[in-house]
Amino acid sequence: MRTERGRRGAMAAERKVTITAIAREAGVSVPTVSRVVNGRSDVAPETRAKVEELLRQYGYRRRTHAPGDRAALLDLVFNDLDSPWAVEIIRGVEEVAHSSGIGTVVSAIHDRAGAARQWMTNLRARASDGVILVTSVLEPLLHNELHRLGVPIVVVDPAGAPALSAPTVGATNWAGGLAATEHLIQLGHRRIGFIAGPPRLLCSRARLDGYRAALESAGLPLDEELEVPGDFYHESGFHGCRQLMRLTDPPTAVFAASDQMAMGAIEALRQRGLRVPQDISVVGFDDLPEMRWSAPPLTTVRQPLAEMGKVAARTVLRQARGEEIDSPRVELATELVVRASTAAPAR
Amino acid sequence: MRTERGRRGAMAAERKVTITAIAREAGVSVPTVSRVVNGRSDVAPETRAKVEELLRQYGYRRRTHAPGDRAALLDLVFNDLDSPWAVEIIRGVEEVAHSSGIGTVVSAIHDRAGAARQWMTNLRARASDGVILVTSVLEPLLHNELHRLGVPIVVVDPAGAPALSAPTVGATNWAGGLAATEHLIQLGHRRIGFIAGPPRLLCSRARLDGYRAALESAGLPLDEELEVPGDFYHESGFHGCRQLMRLTDPPTAVFAASDQMAMGAIEALRQRGLRVPQDISVVGFDDLPEMRWSAPPLTTVRQPLAEMGKVAARTVLRQARGEEIDSPRVELATELVVRASTAAPAR
Repeated sequence: MRTERGRRGAMAAERKVTITAIAREAGVSVPTVSRVVNGRSDVAPETRAKVEELLRQYGYRRRTHAPGDRAALLDLVFNDLDSPWAVEIIRGVEEVAHSSGIGTVVSAIHDRAGAARQWMTNLRARASDGVILVTSVLEPLLHNELHRLGVPIVVVDPAGAPALSAPTVGATNWAGGLAATEHLIQLGHRRIGFIAGPPRLLCSRARLDGYRAALESAGLPLDEELEVPGDFYHESGFHGCRQLMRLTDPPTAVFAASDQMAMGAIEALRQRGLRVPQDISVVGFDDLPEMRWSAPPLTTVRQPLAEMGKVAARTVLRQARGEEIDSPRVELATELVVRASTAAPAR
Repeated sequence: MRTERGRRGAMAAERKVTITAIAREAGVSVPTVSRVVNGRSDVAPETRAKVEELLRQYGYRRRTHAPGDRAALLDLVFNDLDSPWAVEIIRGVEEVAHSSGIGTVVSAIHDRAGAARQWMTNLRARASDGVILVTSVLEPLLHNELHRLGVPIVVVDPAGAPALSAPTVGATNWAGGLAATEHLIQLGHRRIGFIAGPPRLLCSRARLDGYRAALESAGLPLDEELEVPGDFYHESGFHGCRQLMRLTDPPTAVFAASDQMAMGAIEALRQRGLRVPQDISVVGFDDLPEMRWSAPPLTTVRQPLAEMGKVAARTVLRQARGEEIDSPRVELATELVVRASTAAPAR
């Protein structure tokens, strides 16, 4: 990290001469001068010589990097950048990294081996200081390669049994599933449908178990018909809810294991002419910022996504500095947020 | 860019020995070995010597970077990472950059001089190959500093008169405003409210002008009462819609200049017991992915955000390679998407 004084000195030196002026005098483009300054090879030798000479004449101070002074970077890897969920995590990671002078490199690997391989190549080239994997299911070969690189890793919201021996940051998914279901039971609901997340994810399993535990504690029967599959996306919530409403004895309330599935469920109910919460209650999971603006505002379980990003960033940076971390597993608290999509059952 | 063969060779060399094994043998932590490998200064001399010796013995192949081979990076800068809007832009930029082996460094500067200054310091340290500014209002001092650095810049959805002489990528905001308003006129609406975006943004102004142009073409009067201010966020849509509904002669349709304001407007109508679209029609602007799942699914103007990100990334990379760009200003087409939030007026 350069000192404030050092930076000001460098700025003053550069102020004397602009790259634009050099480009003009050399009769070349600004990018060409940039390429010379950055030591790129794709510049004709005579052009390079002319530009180098002008840089020398003007006393242009080139940015240099001692090995220990190289740019600090942190890699943040998602399967997909296709959800408002992702931006919350990015926001938390970026806030911690930015204020430490560290750049947050965001990538998506799309559950595709090719994209993951490309990311690994890029990671090696940029010599990132740390990696935050978000629910990523990396193939074992890449796991091993990451470990060989010796880059600190933190996993956010781990997908399954942690094959990587890396610290993980998650939320209290079981407690959240329990709280959402207990809220519906307290309102008087006895038949509560559940739209699940992808079974391979531990967080899905924990939410389901919380739902079941609440029913059992209240002495309510577990009915397999009331548990339908989903994948966290809107469409599966729409279809899951339709499946629930086709039952001979349909539920009076639906708990969807993600906000996006809750949105899909509300649309399925709207298409059947059912009103939320007068005819049926709906609870989500995540509390994405826009959920207080859904119609009606959604009762949901808040998952502190930005805070999870911050904890992950602090943990990986601590590892990068060679410091001990507090715990290999941190779970941040979820919280039930009651809004307008839940009410006592109609009958 | 290393060749496939070169990469495989490096991988094979590294496979022979893991950093973990060296850490074990040296009796130090894995991060400590990493720090030695990465040339950090914060390692005790005797520890460094021991680790260096083991690295040599094992023939560990250190990652090295020739000047022209350094990690390629692209900086993507937002004011705030607080909207699903941002993730769409990131997705587009990341896709282009990732496949070219370039890392996308995402930052937020929060319209605060301190954060912008910190970002500039970070940018200089990492010697980024290009900068994409998204509706950022950088202070003039930073403008000048960016130009002095000679880093290629592209501005997405420019905020105002482009003070930076940089290429810009936007959408056909005027045509979008026109299409949304014409749709409502064709349904039979005569009094159409408009909730505007921040007046300092050119895109806000263009959408307002499109709205006015459609009314004038249809021979409908412009009524200043029907134009209320907003800032693109939910809350302002909520308040703007309440203001419109308090008019002596309230509108039968509302065109909000962003999807988030449309959501706020729908919530205001719900709280007044008004149904969309039976009692009042609502049109948004953006077509965020979740808008097909809003209740009801929103009629809106699609802005190709991910594509805008892709074009911006391709443009800035082309500049970084010293190539000519096609045009200093690219506008991608908007498109009206008709869903369930608009219908003929009730009366």
